[in-house]
Amino acid sequence: MSLFEAAVAVPTLSSTAAATGGPVTVPASRGELQVELEMRHAGRRRVTLSWESQGPVDAPVVLVAGGISAHRHAAASASFPERGWLDGLIGPGRALDPARRRVLAFDFVGADGRLDAPIDTADQADAAAALLEGLGIARLDAFVGYSYGALVGLQFAARHPVKLQRLVAVSGAHRAHPYAAAWRALQRRAVGLGELQCSDVQGLGLARQFAMLSYRTPEEFAGRFDAPPEIINGRVRVAAEDYLDAAGARFVSRTSVTAWLRLSESIDLHRVDPAAIRVPATVVAVEGDWLAPLDDSVALVEGLGVPGRLRVLRSAYGHDAFLKEHGKVDAILRAALADAEGAA
Amino acid sequence: MSLFEAAVAVPTLSSTAAATGGPVTVPASRGELQVELEMRHAGRRRVTLSWESQGPVDAPVVLVAGGISAHRHAAASASFPERGWLDGLIGPGRALDPARRRVLAFDFVGADGRLDAPIDTADQADAAAALLEGLGIARLDAFVGYSYGALVGLQFAARHPVKLQRLVAVSGAHRAHPYAAAWRALQRRAVGLGELQCSDVQGLGLARQFAMLSYRTPEEFAGRFDAPPEIINGRVRVAAEDYLDAAGARFVSRTSVTAWLRLSESIDLHRVDPAAIRVPATVVAVEGDWLAPLDDSVALVEGLGVPGRLRVLRSAYGHDAFLKEHGKVDAILRAALADAEGAA
Repeated sequence: MSLFEAAVAVPTLSSTAAATGGPVTVPASRGELQVELEMRHAGRRRVTLSWESQGPVDAPVVLVAGGISAHRHAAASASFPERGWLDGLIGPGRALDPARRRVLAFDFVGADGRLDAPIDTADQADAAAALLEGLGIARLDAFVGYSYGALVGLQFAARHPVKLQRLVAVSGAHRAHPYAAAWRALQRRAVGLGELQCSDVQGLGLARQFAMLSYRTPEEFAGRFDAPPEIINGRVRVAAEDYLDAAGARFVSRTSVTAWLRLSESIDLHRVDPAAIRVPATVVAVEGDWLAPLDDSVALVEGLGVPGRLRVLRSAYGHDAFLKEHGKVDAILRAALADAEGAA
Repeated sequence: MSLFEAAVAVPTLSSTAAATGGPVTVPASRGELQVELEMRHAGRRRVTLSWESQGPVDAPVVLVAGGISAHRHAAASASFPERGWLDGLIGPGRALDPARRRVLAFDFVGADGRLDAPIDTADQADAAAALLEGLGIARLDAFVGYSYGALVGLQFAARHPVKLQRLVAVSGAHRAHPYAAAWRALQRRAVGLGELQCSDVQGLGLARQFAMLSYRTPEEFAGRFDAPPEIINGRVRVAAEDYLDAAGARFVSRTSVTAWLRLSESIDLHRVDPAAIRVPATVVAVEGDWLAPLDDSVALVEGLGVPGRLRVLRSAYGHDAFLKEHGKVDAILRAALADAEGAA
C-alpha cells in the first residue's frame, strides 16, 4: 500500500439531519453519519461523523476545519445560536456568507475520545470524503483549513482531488515542524505526568497552558502581562498566570484527555508530499508563527504539483491570527474564493 | 528602603583556599566564605559562598557568571581538571586567558538547595560584592555575565559601581520578558505536578525539557530532528524525544529541586533600572533568542545611565549561543575587555 493510497470509506448509515424551519432565513442543519474508515495506523474502524452546515443546500459548499479543538459548530445560526469557533469569519458580507455558500464543518475523528489509537491527518481527509459522499456532495468549492484543519485540507487535496476545486491552507504546512513537534510531545508528557497520579485534568491543564504559549507571541504577552510578579505564600507568581489558569480550566472542562492526546499526536504524524497536491491552493502563513513557520509554508508552495499562491500575514497573535484578525483573513479568503465563486 | 539600597554583607569567616602547587603554570584555587546578606525578600540570612578562581592572584580580576545551572567551576585547570561550564571561552589565547587575567566564579546563592525562599538577582549581586570583600579584591576589571549571570551583572553594576570597571551582559536584560516569565512559571508548575505524586524528579525532568526548547531554536531542531515520528507501544514518539530524555535525565541527576525552583523564580523577580547603571557596558543580544529578546536589549542600552554598546549575534543556538559560538563570543569579549586591559 502506498503512502498516499486511496481511502476505503463506506458510509453505512445515513444521517438524520435536524433540519431547521420557521423564520430562519439561512437554513442550518446537523447530523451524524456512521462510516467505516481504513485508517493509516489504526486499521479498519467504524466511526461516527458529526457534521453541521449553514447555508442553502444547493449553494456551493465550503468545508471549514480548524485546530484540534475545533468542531462542527463553526458559527452561530438561528437554529444553533451558541457561539461557534469561527463566528468572526462567517456571516453576511463575509467571504464565508451562508446566504451564498453552504458552510460545512465536522467533528474530527477522535474528537469524541472513543478512539484510543494513532490517528493520521490522512484519516481525517478520508473521513471528510466519506462525509461528502454521505451528504451527496460531489465536490467542494473550497476546503478552508486553519492549523490542524490546514493539514487535513492538504491531505484531502492530495487524496481526493476530484472532490475539491480549491484549497485554502492557513497556518499549516506539509509536515509537522520538528521544534513544534517536540513542544507538543512535552505537552503530552505533562498529561502523562498527571495520569500517573490519577490527575489527568491537572496534566491536561498544564499541557494546554504550554500550548497557549505556542499559539500566541512574545509581542502579545509583552503588551498584556508586563506587571511585576507577586510573591504569594512564599512563591513567585508572574503576571500571565491568572490568564493561563483560566485558559487551562476552560479547556479541561470541555476536552477529553484521550481525544486531545490522539489529536495532538496526529499533528506530529502529519506528512504530505506537496507535489501530490494538484488543485489550486492558497497557502497563508503568519510571520512569527513558529508552530507553522513561514519557511515551511514557502517550501510547501514551491513544492506544490501546480502553481499556488502564498499570502503572508503579520500579526501579534501568531498561530492564532486566523481566529483573531478577521478583517485581514476575510480579505484573503475573498480573493482566494473569487475564482470559485465565478465558476459557481 | 529604596529598591536599590546598598547591600549589608558581612564576611564572617575567611575561606580556606585549596592553593595549587607543583608543575601548574596557572594557579587555581577554591574556597568557601560565609557571609550575612540582607536579602530583598528573604530577610537577613547567613549563606555560604563557594568560589573558584584561575589565574595569577595579582592579575586583573574578571568575574564570570552564567545561567542558573552554572557554578564556580567555569573552566578546567591542572588543579581542577573536570570540565567547566565555560571551557570554550577560557584558555590560552582567549580574551579570558588565565595567564593574564584572574577568572573568578561562584555558586549562586540558593544553588545548594538550602535556601527555600524567594531570591532576587540583587541578592546575588550583593553576594558577589561580599565575596570580593572577603577575597580582598577592591574592584573587578570586568563582570562578564551570560543569561542569569547577565542579570546579576546588571544588578552588580547598579548597586556596586565602585567595585566594577566594566560590564559585559550577554543574553540578559533589565527585566524578565513577560513571555519568558510565563514559560518559566509553567516549568515550575511541572515540578509542582511531579511533587504532588512525590516524583519531584519527573517533574523537574519535564521542566528541564521545556526549558531546553527555550534555550534553543526551531532552526537548530529543524536541522537535527527532521526524522519522521515513530509509533511505539501505540504512542507517537517524535524525533527529538531521545535528545530531550537525555537532557532531562542528565539535569535531574545533578540538580536540587529547591535550588532550581528558587533560581527560576529569581529570574522572574529580576528588575533593574537601566538608568542606574553608570559603568561602561557592552550588551550582547542573540537574534532569535526569545528568552532575552533583542528588543529588550535595545531598550536596555538606550536606557543606560551612560552610553553603552550593543552587539548582536546571529546564531541557530538562540539563548545558548554564548556557550556554543565560542569564536564569535570571544571576539566580542576581546573588544569589550580591551579598554580594561589597557587600563590594567
